[in-house]
Amino acid sequence: MGNLLERIELPEGIRRLSEQQLEQLAEEIRALIIHTVSVNGGHLAPSLGTVELTLALYRVFHFPTDKLIWDVGHQAYTHKILSGRRESFATLRKKGGITGFPKRAESAYDAFGVGHASTSISAALGMAVARDLKRETHQVIAVIGDGALTGGEAFEALNHAGDLHRDMLVILNDNEMSIDKNVGGMSMYLSELRIAPQYHRAKRDMENLIKSIPGIGGKVLRTANSIKDGVKTALTPGGLFEEIGFQYIGPIDGHNLRQLQEVLVRVRELKGPILLHVHTKKGCGYEPAEQYPEKFHGIGRFDEETGEVIRKTESVPAAYTDVFSKALLDCAEKYKNLTAITAAMPSGTGLKAFQKAFPKRCFDVGIAEEHAMTLAAGMAAEGMRPVVALYSTFAQRAYDQILHDVCLQRLPVTLCLDRAGLVGEDGPTHHGVFDLSYLRHMPHMSLLAPKDENELRQMLFAVLEQDGPAAIRYPRGAGIGVPVEEEQQRIPWGKAELLREGTDVMLLAAGSMVHPSLESAALLEQAGISAGVVNMRFVKPLDEAVLLQAADRKLVVTCEENALAGGFGAAVAEFYADHGMPVPMLRFGIPDAFIEQGTRKELLELCGLLPEQIAERVRKAWGNL
Amino acid sequence: MGNLLERIELPEGIRRLSEQQLEQLAEEIRALIIHTVSVNGGHLAPSLGTVELTLALYRVFHFPTDKLIWDVGHQAYTHKILSGRRESFATLRKKGGITGFPKRAESAYDAFGVGHASTSISAALGMAVARDLKRETHQVIAVIGDGALTGGEAFEALNHAGDLHRDMLVILNDNEMSIDKNVGGMSMYLSELRIAPQYHRAKRDMENLIKSIPGIGGKVLRTANSIKDGVKTALTPGGLFEEIGFQYIGPIDGHNLRQLQEVLVRVRELKGPILLHVHTKKGCGYEPAEQYPEKFHGIGRFDEETGEVIRKTESVPAAYTDVFSKALLDCAEKYKNLTAITAAMPSGTGLKAFQKAFPKRCFDVGIAEEHAMTLAAGMAAEGMRPVVALYSTFAQRAYDQILHDVCLQRLPVTLCLDRAGLVGEDGPTHHGVFDLSYLRHMPHMSLLAPKDENELRQMLFAVLEQDGPAAIRYPRGAGIGVPVEEEQQRIPWGKAELLREGTDVMLLAAGSMVHPSLESAALLEQAGISAGVVNMRFVKPLDEAVLLQAADRKLVVTCEENALAGGFGAAVAEFYADHGMPVPMLRFGIPDAFIEQGTRKELLELCGLLPEQIAERVRKAWGNL
Repeated sequence: MGNLLERIELPEGIRRLSEQQLEQLAEEIRALIIHTVSVNGGHLAPSLGTVELTLALYRVFHFPTDKLIWDVGHQAYTHKILSGRRESFATLRKKGGITGFPKRAESAYDAFGVGHASTSISAALGMAVARDLKRETHQVIAVIGDGALTGGEAFEALNHAGDLHRDMLVILNDNEMSIDKNVGGMSMYLSELRIAPQYHRAKRDMENLIKSIPGIGGKVLRTANSIKDGVKTALTPGGLFEEIGFQYIGPIDGHNLRQLQEVLVRVRELKGPILLHVHTKKGCGYEPAEQYPEKFHGIGRFDEETGEVIRKTESVPAAYTDVFSKALLDCAEKYKNLTAITAAMPSGTGLKAFQKAFPKRCFDVGIAEEHAMTLAAGMAAEGMRPVVALYSTFAQRAYDQILHDVCLQRLPVTLCLDRAGLVGEDGPTHHGVFDLSYLRHMPHMSLLAPKDENELRQMLFAVLEQDGPAAIRYPRGAGIGVPVEEEQQRIPWGKAELLREGTDVMLLAAGSMVHPSLESAALLEQAGISAGVVNMRFVKPLDEAVLLQAADRKLVVTCEENALAGGFGAAVAEFYADHGMPVPMLRFGIPDAFIEQGTRKELLELCGLLPEQIAERVRKAWGNL
Repeated sequence: MGNLLERIELPEGIRRLSEQQLEQLAEEIRALIIHTVSVNGGHLAPSLGTVELTLALYRVFHFPTDKLIWDVGHQAYTHKILSGRRESFATLRKKGGITGFPKRAESAYDAFGVGHASTSISAALGMAVARDLKRETHQVIAVIGDGALTGGEAFEALNHAGDLHRDMLVILNDNEMSIDKNVGGMSMYLSELRIAPQYHRAKRDMENLIKSIPGIGGKVLRTANSIKDGVKTALTPGGLFEEIGFQYIGPIDGHNLRQLQEVLVRVRELKGPILLHVHTKKGCGYEPAEQYPEKFHGIGRFDEETGEVIRKTESVPAAYTDVFSKALLDCAEKYKNLTAITAAMPSGTGLKAFQKAFPKRCFDVGIAEEHAMTLAAGMAAEGMRPVVALYSTFAQRAYDQILHDVCLQRLPVTLCLDRAGLVGEDGPTHHGVFDLSYLRHMPHMSLLAPKDENELRQMLFAVLEQDGPAAIRYPRGAGIGVPVEEEQQRIPWGKAELLREGTDVMLLAAGSMVHPSLESAALLEQAGISAGVVNMRFVKPLDEAVLLQAADRKLVVTCEENALAGGFGAAVAEFYADHGMPVPMLRFGIPDAFIEQGTRKELLELCGLLPEQIAERVRKAWGNL
């Protein structure tokens, strides 16, 4: 039959395939995804779980007239391949290439841009409302994983959709995982639905049993029907969804192409909000990913044959995440009231070791950052020292809880914000470049950024000796290779660290920009400009003495891997304004734009944050003083 | 029997009262609440609904050893009166007085500070975890309204609590209202539970019917028991809560003191997470509030006899909310694709008129700000022009959705942020003093602040002629009394308005601070300082030409009713820093602290934002230049 994927015209061509050809196409797509991700990295296991589901959707519905919204978007690679991006798929996650998530600007088939979880039902409902107001008749479909379903926004949307009663289809892509194993009452509930086939038989048996009772059986069943909701729940699985206004269908096998198409054809004709429960297997069709779905959720380069991750060199420094992981363990030994909380990311945030060592003090709340934060506040109110480990970008979900529950009550909750700064290939939905801006205006909050992995460890100890809320932000990936000292070092609270003296210019650097700033200073020295460098350590409270001293220089430069608006450099500008000190300044950071995907280095260059770029701009400014 | 409330020692004394005395105490408390709120204003209807529930809780549990968390806190006046604040209750909501919400700093009985909705179950779970880690045995109780239950965070917490299985009691205070009528599938579900007594009878009838079938009946029932969850749901109401791990009890009458105590005594002995469903009546015991629970949800001074609100004078200018309400109606006539969204606040945000005129274009999503925002994004992606009307403080809940769903996709969603700035008596949980800071660093966002009620109207029209996301923020309460022009005026995009020339100092003012700044300028003129005033109109994009011109003055002053950190003045400081213009500045705004309750004027004074305070500080700075 040859290579179907290259021969047929996508997406229309797949309608003309036989069922057998469709199976072949699924295999070809799977091979393409595995190969591409083995080279570029990406979200493999979730996308392998939805190959058949996506094919069935494209056979039954007409995209982009019908609207298809993928929650999170980890699972949308087949969708990308089918909708005009087969050839460019090799550029997946590269600068200027195909993005790792659905994105409106990339394709008309990407009805709604995603990245953060639990938004798809809200967006789909909005689109269904718009369709009805425009008197159009297309279908609107959201595909949401059981992990994303634990996010409160998904529930808010289900609740509202059940009430509005628009025609829309929510497909629950149930693989029993978010990124790690799922948690929560909803997860237990779904497990029980999964065993529903036996249940269906039991139900039928009972009905037949009752009906068979001479004379009285029919009456019993009628009574049952009159007791509306309770018994309806008993006689249909998925009662929980039915209770709030959805028609529940399922569960069905998400890898059975024929059954998927049959059910979708029937579902297409139904009115009102429908929840179709599809059971899929994460990593399906690639044995290493089936076996280790967590490892293959999001993965870097790997050997396609063996599934072994390809390490760049043997001597990569320890990742910030790993240093945090170890530091947390050691802190937990010292501080018996320390607890740790993660939102569905025990692996990603480095909590696995803590979870294993202190299972009773570790809490994975599922994809539920809002709850994670108020849970921490509740613990802190009763004398615990909760450490909430999140990615910077996902902590955005808990903005109000950090402000209203933690800061307003001055509770000693510690935020450990991993992936702060530019994250690279995951792109604009995942860059953690706003945390300094959204946390700095919160009263009582302390903000710390370590210059290296050793300082991360020391800062965690320092924070735990203080009262009140604090956040430590650190970048994605490897540290800079300094030794991590077991013994606790002194990090004087609110004090910056002068790393290099300089009489002309003072570079004030936060966190990940400290070492690049030292390089810039060396380059400036070569150009005859004496540049000092300060490791600020604290973005809040600012070390005012250091700022006052720096004002003696002819130019003060701020460097941060955060939005220029409202971040660290803004704090310095505010300080000088408020102290009646008009100081010549130059600010380096993320401009007022969403930064696309690429390697971290490419993106730093895009933002003008490489040491030579900083030196060059300072040299020019110096010349113009 | 005399006045019990003044005679007995609270809270312990209420344990020794007879049931009859307890009824009397309930009446006395009700009278005290009605009287106090009629003088001070406050949240009357919700607090009248929980008098008996609170008394029963205090009879059965031992606070503050047991922990009691009120969701939102609108309903906690009886709790305050019983827990040592009877005498100070007359100072409710006044500067330095008793706060309108539970607050940890105010009393050991206020286990967790609240104000925003849907946090109580998370906090209670955190406290239950802390209790278990400390090997203590007290009870943890959250009281949450059916309105707050629609907030996603509450669902996240229920989901997690059902899984963790700690001993905790969640009391669902079900009054069929949030502030306005409730919406959503959950609300329909609860309505059906409310009629459960009939249902209970029907269930019993059916069981008896089946049992009575000779020979076979017992077998049917056993089969039923073996089909675990479905049938359990059928045979118990509240199956939705049971499905995710809670034991459901109810519904019971929330105004029957004897029954409440009996049930609480039994519930106290149960293990694991319990949901007790209590049916209460908002405004119970005060006829005007029973009749108009929305009006009496939060209310100003009123006549205790008649329930009539006491207007200060006849000639109060139209409130910003009312001007917005009318403007939205007129915009909706002009822009047929305009839709409006509110989160449980059609009255408070002024959407009632729009809802009545355009019911198909108006969406009340319940207390669900996250969903509201992504719903708007979904509509905007399909060609609608959604206007999302929220209080500034509650929009904080949707920070990530504004950034990730609206701004990143540059969708034309318009945020209308009422109650921006200091809100007065509701205090720190409700001040809208962060929006400029949390929205300004979002790429693509435009930020507008009208100087008066007429400009609010004109800005709404201006925004709808632009593409992309925008927010208009305006203060609580009355406008300044200018005529509101029906005809659309031109608001040039991104352009500020010079209101007064001045050669020495330039005051750059945002929104509510424009008119006070004009007064300051007049005062400065009397002191021999020539001060100009600019109505900035746009905090983003900034009118750069105006900033460049202002830099010629010897002093640039910024005035805003927003946090100084990261807000408008910060934007101006950043601008001068980034343009190599070290300009002497003075910034007025909200300091880095949570501002307590008081009248708006008292709080403005506290923050140094009264015209004479601004003039005085400028004069001093001028003298030191």
